[in-house]
Amino acid sequence: MEKVDAVIKSVLERIKPTEDEIKEVKELVKLLEDAGNKVVKEVGGTAKVQGSIAHGTWISGEKDVDLFLIFPSTIDRESLLDYCYKVAEEINASEVIEAYAEHPYVRAKLGDYTIDIVPCYKIADAKFKVTSADRTPLHTEYILKHLDDRLRDEIRLLKQFMKGIGVYGAEIKVRGFSGYLCELLIIHYGSFVDCVKDASNWRHKKIIDIEGYYKDFPEKLNVIFNEPLVVVDPVDSSRNVAASVSLENFYRFREASRAFLMDPSEKFFFPSEITPLSPEECLSKMSSRGTDFIVITCRKPNVVDDILWGQIDKSVKAFRNILKTWKFNVVRIEAYASDEKLYFIIELEHIRMPNIEIHRGPLVTIRIHSANFVRKYTTTAKDEVFSGPYIRGGRWYVERKRKYSDARVLLLDYLLNKIDSSGIASRIRRSIKKEFDMFINEEILSLYRFDDSFAKFFTCFLEKIEPWLR
Amino acid sequence: MEKVDAVIKSVLERIKPTEDEIKEVKELVKLLEDAGNKVVKEVGGTAKVQGSIAHGTWISGEKDVDLFLIFPSTIDRESLLDYCYKVAEEINASEVIEAYAEHPYVRAKLGDYTIDIVPCYKIADAKFKVTSADRTPLHTEYILKHLDDRLRDEIRLLKQFMKGIGVYGAEIKVRGFSGYLCELLIIHYGSFVDCVKDASNWRHKKIIDIEGYYKDFPEKLNVIFNEPLVVVDPVDSSRNVAASVSLENFYRFREASRAFLMDPSEKFFFPSEITPLSPEECLSKMSSRGTDFIVITCRKPNVVDDILWGQIDKSVKAFRNILKTWKFNVVRIEAYASDEKLYFIIELEHIRMPNIEIHRGPLVTIRIHSANFVRKYTTTAKDEVFSGPYIRGGRWYVERKRKYSDARVLLLDYLLNKIDSSGIASRIRRSIKKEFDMFINEEILSLYRFDDSFAKFFTCFLEKIEPWLR
Repeated sequence: MEKVDAVIKSVLERIKPTEDEIKEVKELVKLLEDAGNKVVKEVGGTAKVQGSIAHGTWISGEKDVDLFLIFPSTIDRESLLDYCYKVAEEINASEVIEAYAEHPYVRAKLGDYTIDIVPCYKIADAKFKVTSADRTPLHTEYILKHLDDRLRDEIRLLKQFMKGIGVYGAEIKVRGFSGYLCELLIIHYGSFVDCVKDASNWRHKKIIDIEGYYKDFPEKLNVIFNEPLVVVDPVDSSRNVAASVSLENFYRFREASRAFLMDPSEKFFFPSEITPLSPEECLSKMSSRGTDFIVITCRKPNVVDDILWGQIDKSVKAFRNILKTWKFNVVRIEAYASDEKLYFIIELEHIRMPNIEIHRGPLVTIRIHSANFVRKYTTTAKDEVFSGPYIRGGRWYVERKRKYSDARVLLLDYLLNKIDSSGIASRIRRSIKKEFDMFINEEILSLYRFDDSFAKFFTCFLEKIEPWLR
Repeated sequence: MEKVDAVIKSVLERIKPTEDEIKEVKELVKLLEDAGNKVVKEVGGTAKVQGSIAHGTWISGEKDVDLFLIFPSTIDRESLLDYCYKVAEEINASEVIEAYAEHPYVRAKLGDYTIDIVPCYKIADAKFKVTSADRTPLHTEYILKHLDDRLRDEIRLLKQFMKGIGVYGAEIKVRGFSGYLCELLIIHYGSFVDCVKDASNWRHKKIIDIEGYYKDFPEKLNVIFNEPLVVVDPVDSSRNVAASVSLENFYRFREASRAFLMDPSEKFFFPSEITPLSPEECLSKMSSRGTDFIVITCRKPNVVDDILWGQIDKSVKAFRNILKTWKFNVVRIEAYASDEKLYFIIELEHIRMPNIEIHRGPLVTIRIHSANFVRKYTTTAKDEVFSGPYIRGGRWYVERKRKYSDARVLLLDYLLNKIDSSGIASRIRRSIKKEFDMFINEEILSLYRFDDSFAKFFTCFLEKIEPWLR
């Protein structure tokens, strides 16, 4: 464990906030809460910073602060957002915009900090919540009651580890581990090392019930929760804090934990940066794979990230489906969103398929179908026939013209003419209808050369490897 | 049925032997039997013509005669062939060679007739047979007892129909209906039309037991025989005369029968000839399919047809297997034997596959395998890796170099270096070891231009259609 300790010590030095930073954050918290209280006091509300800043578990350099405005239930919902705007004004924030998760809130800039001003109702028990935001103050209460400074550092380590291996964040884009989940894991295991030790043996499903809500009827857990990882929320026994963790990320954390314990290294926390390939290297890497690439781009729909990534996932499935329906073999499809654009990157075994397809006809023993099949392919549909009809085993076959033998033509036809039945998600569909671009193989370089963030992502696509193995 | 009758009448005029032909054949039979008897009388044997000539069911123009030398069981097996040679000498035959089916016999030319001189033992009951040849005289006896001249014409029609639709012959190359089987079908059904009427409704399995050997325990038939068509041999209840009929040809006969009854035409008996495409048409047809073609040729092994086609079938399976193992998608593989050469024609979706293959690794939960997999593909086998290792769902994956991305290279490697473990049949293997050639796509034209019989077969391969639909 000496090596583990050395790595941990060194990582902690990099991620633990400095005295100056702590002082700065404390002042910021006071300023925010004072301003908030000033605005909401009149209606019996209170303003309190929540999340990792409130819990004292933030990682050095993080500049996101959650300021919650907690209202009595007598205040009606429609007016809540006005108070958020008032607070933003009170602190003289810049770039104030309305954002949206489960419910609307206000996002504002203050210096280099991003302040989310979130309205919620004061509740005594999670079961009275109106939105999930209402539960947040209960989380803070619980966390503050169970943490000390040693545990705070352990949490920082776990969060940084999750970031390093690419599984940090409950949002749909990541489908990973939230900050609150990391905090609960450390409360449960007592230390980062004990957490990864146990995680390295996880098999889904892994169940953690810190407050022992289900200790007398554990079988209930299997019925209520069907995610690979179940961590019962200490403030709400009906909620799985780890509901967002995908099977893949569950196993990714397991494997990274195991690899870290076998050969501890800072690269698990700080993987080496991806250096985009030069355009020439990129082209040579593409052609050395001997596959074909299609990139489809459109403007990014103006929706919040979770909705966007839900739509992206659905659209990736739609592309996969279309290609599979027409018998193109997909190697991989991945999507990327830059600030302004969406990119679907499709890798195919072959962009061109034969002009023929072997079409299996009816069983010879089914008289009517056989007769119709033979008649069709010797008369009306004769033009589509390359070979046949012929009998193989007990069936009729023809080798007929494949409708789409070029994936580019197929996708263009779907995007231009059949988009409403394509399965592509609504907002992305709308964006594609306005404008899209398609790039094939070396044409992709024209994107690659002029869009650094795409170049980085495309390099990742080509090199696809777990970050700690980079 | 008027149209059927007209067709039948017209066909019969073409296939019924003329008076002159009958006279010529009768004289030939007498000459052969006299010569044969002269040779075998001294040892108590008799010579008798068998088969369709003896049954009077041959089709005009057929020039194959089976002369059987029937010996008492006291004559030892080794000396039988000597008598066959002596008979060949006696009739002054040319091109006398030793041939081989189940046992050796002698094949000789006399004018434009081919005479098979086959030795066998005289038996009273099929259960005493030493080889299947011994049973032949019993067949002749049975047939002669059950035929009249009307039935002989019905048999001629059925045989010609089988020829026309490509299912005539019990040999392995065809896996179809023997002459004797056609004779039994007519004895059973009474006429050609009644035979095809019933056949047009056949479903496998179809059982015909003319002598009613199994009428008291029909369930036994299902146990003893598992071919699609079962016709119990009237002279040997343990034998299925239709054992050679493949499922495909069973259904082909059914479908042709049905189509003939719906729209009677001489094309079922005399399908239009295949005109080989011009080399230019051939090339354009090949490229319009958008597939890739490989032709492998070698000298034809010097073995009898049934063994040859057994070996060819096995070798076709081997080629299919090799290509499938290495993930090449086969459209079709067919083989052709000319007088001197063998041709394997392979059509692939793509002759080139990507350089990468997605290689599925172990489940993440299997510690040792996971660790070995990751170690292997990040160290020793790193050179083979294009992407990965990465986790998808619950498994490790890499995208690694495909061993063979070109089917030509794959097949050359197998034919040159791995032929003994290739699955290709022994005699063909030996021939390939001596010399073979491989032709890809337009290279095939160099064969096509100079080998008419190949050109005809290759045209058939490209147009592949049931003969009566041509």
